[in-house]
Amino acid sequence: MTKALEGVTILDFSHLLQGPFATQLLGDMGADVIKIERAGAGDMFRGMTFFAKWVGGSQSPNFLAWNRNKRSIALNLKSRKVHAIIMAMARTADVVVQNFRPGVLARLGYGYEDFRAVNPRIIYCSGSGYGEDGPYVDRPGQDMLIQGLAGLIANTGRGDQPPVPAGAGLADQIGAMNMVYGILSALYARERTGRGQKIEVNLLAGMLAHLNQEYVAVLNLGEDFVRPRSGIGHPGMQAPFGIYEAADGGHVSIAMSPFRTLYEVLEAPHLAPYDDLATLFDKRDEVWEKVNAETRRFGTQDLLARLLGADIWCAEVKDIRRAAEDPQVIHMGMIASYEHPKAGTVRVVAPAVRMSETPASIDRPAPLVGQHGREILAHYGVPAAEIEALEAAGDMTVEEA
Amino acid sequence: MTKALEGVTILDFSHLLQGPFATQLLGDMGADVIKIERAGAGDMFRGMTFFAKWVGGSQSPNFLAWNRNKRSIALNLKSRKVHAIIMAMARTADVVVQNFRPGVLARLGYGYEDFRAVNPRIIYCSGSGYGEDGPYVDRPGQDMLIQGLAGLIANTGRGDQPPVPAGAGLADQIGAMNMVYGILSALYARERTGRGQKIEVNLLAGMLAHLNQEYVAVLNLGEDFVRPRSGIGHPGMQAPFGIYEAADGGHVSIAMSPFRTLYEVLEAPHLAPYDDLATLFDKRDEVWEKVNAETRRFGTQDLLARLLGADIWCAEVKDIRRAAEDPQVIHMGMIASYEHPKAGTVRVVAPAVRMSETPASIDRPAPLVGQHGREILAHYGVPAAEIEALEAAGDMTVEEA
Repeated sequence: MTKALEGVTILDFSHLLQGPFATQLLGDMGADVIKIERAGAGDMFRGMTFFAKWVGGSQSPNFLAWNRNKRSIALNLKSRKVHAIIMAMARTADVVVQNFRPGVLARLGYGYEDFRAVNPRIIYCSGSGYGEDGPYVDRPGQDMLIQGLAGLIANTGRGDQPPVPAGAGLADQIGAMNMVYGILSALYARERTGRGQKIEVNLLAGMLAHLNQEYVAVLNLGEDFVRPRSGIGHPGMQAPFGIYEAADGGHVSIAMSPFRTLYEVLEAPHLAPYDDLATLFDKRDEVWEKVNAETRRFGTQDLLARLLGADIWCAEVKDIRRAAEDPQVIHMGMIASYEHPKAGTVRVVAPAVRMSETPASIDRPAPLVGQHGREILAHYGVPAAEIEALEAAGDMTVEEA
Repeated sequence: MTKALEGVTILDFSHLLQGPFATQLLGDMGADVIKIERAGAGDMFRGMTFFAKWVGGSQSPNFLAWNRNKRSIALNLKSRKVHAIIMAMARTADVVVQNFRPGVLARLGYGYEDFRAVNPRIIYCSGSGYGEDGPYVDRPGQDMLIQGLAGLIANTGRGDQPPVPAGAGLADQIGAMNMVYGILSALYARERTGRGQKIEVNLLAGMLAHLNQEYVAVLNLGEDFVRPRSGIGHPGMQAPFGIYEAADGGHVSIAMSPFRTLYEVLEAPHLAPYDDLATLFDKRDEVWEKVNAETRRFGTQDLLARLLGADIWCAEVKDIRRAAEDPQVIHMGMIASYEHPKAGTVRVVAPAVRMSETPASIDRPAPLVGQHGREILAHYGVPAAEIEALEAAGDMTVEEA
């Protein structure tokens, strides 16, 4: 069985999260991803981590998470010799991905026009924080900044507390998905037209598009979101939608369900007078307090069993370690691992999309800096002496496995 | 100029958010999306809203947000006559999308095998909460439930407060992007193999994949995320990464930046002793309090100007209404509108991805229930008398514009 994107070659100049997650998704589907890092230290994400700790003592969990299924070559992009080599590689490549700040890569001779001149079939995808022109063009774009600018942070948290970001970098990941969406659309179009194109993705636009229903509500209903002063789960939603406490300190989320079913299964008929949409919205914090007083009578597992038995939409709130041990997560095989030359066995999240004929898979660990530089250049016909000269000049870095 | 997915026909049985956002993304790129709703009330999302209010007095902002660029036909899927018509349509269709609970649509004769029997090129994409088998197969899957199960909620909020969901439905939107990723990969593969396939996407797996760096950290560093007791923006991050207060009540996010640059630009040299990675992590709440005391000396705009002048990664935290008026958002044309027969002018978020040769665009408003049923059936050669009979029998609903 082949993979869906077998035969697609990607020259990947991207770093940090947005671009690397995008090319990892394409690599999971079989694309040949050549990660072009800067000579020396490589991708900046190699130097960032959580908890101020490193996997295997030296490797970034962030980098390990977003760079499987790629080979790395680390080059000095300012070298003219390197430029000639990359342009030769581009003649047979399909896709270029990059997320430097706008204009940086073009000034080095790696803009869309440079690639199109050698290969009109090339699909060139740029990622940025705020797009490639406009008042914010020179500002740093980063996940949390985008969450804040787009309105997600103001929508998150309790009304009597400051707003909080989502506890994971979702703007970057959404930006990555938008790159995939653009690149795959362009690949399909190219099958008919024979021509490539330029794609621009930015984190701010991507996050706005994911918040479309919040924007449509605010811009057309004349009302602003006000964060609830209780465990209601969204500032536009009525009770009971929210997070509730159990007797043992656990938490259970309860989504849209008939309110009557809920108060009946909780044996709380005194909640009946709240049962209409306007009241459940206007008095949502009061309703939350009363429902929460009922859920606190049960342990987490008892509460879940009782609610699920009545087909109430609910689930346990788990932390990441317990989520990794969740029976459904295990059943789906969503926690996988790969062997890494320096980090050892690395546990990672498996590909999320199941394809019956062309399954995605993890075929390579995240690479070391420039680990595959020599084999990649040899494949493209660069003579051994020239490869040695590049290394000797410091224009190519090879970290040995 | 044509659009990237022109000529791709999608039979879209999906409802609520995941499937509809996926098919809207494909429709924005030019696919012909035929939304097949249930006769009578149509998509369940038409009956849900925020603020207990309706756009134009009757239309759901949620539905309006995710259903542009589609035509609607509303049919009784239990009718054998309807089944024959849909199977005839499927002979020339490219993609089927559905997100009923696992097994429901197959029992009505609309499973992958049914479609493959009439068209082996069909790409059939199913969305669900938890996949199509396993211990949770019969449980309701919904955005907030998934955020909680996958660990996002436990990671969000302050440590001295209960965990909170992200204030927007992101699990569904991410599920939608995964559908797009699978469908476009399969379309590209079909160009070479001539064969379709079945794709399974689920919200839980999709959210896990977006949290990959959090999972890699927890599962490989032997440490759990603990929510900060301050405005630090991620439970794995060191200070100063977080949300800070300004003198005028506004908030500013500050992402990864050299700590020395930050305390210098804030004229706070007494923060120098904290300047190493381990200390910035271990004492992050203390550092946050001290940095926050400095940021509160400035108004929001002054603070931003000062920080941006030193290339500190920062941005204002805006609510959705102010975000819609942001100069960069306006510059990018990200707030667009369409004319809707019942809701009037509806302001929406524009397509996020810019394609140089095949630009995405909004060509149709969200449809009324079954609004295009007659024209769709006529196009597929169903005789006028048969169309009338379907309507008379209640097997097809047409809401007039």
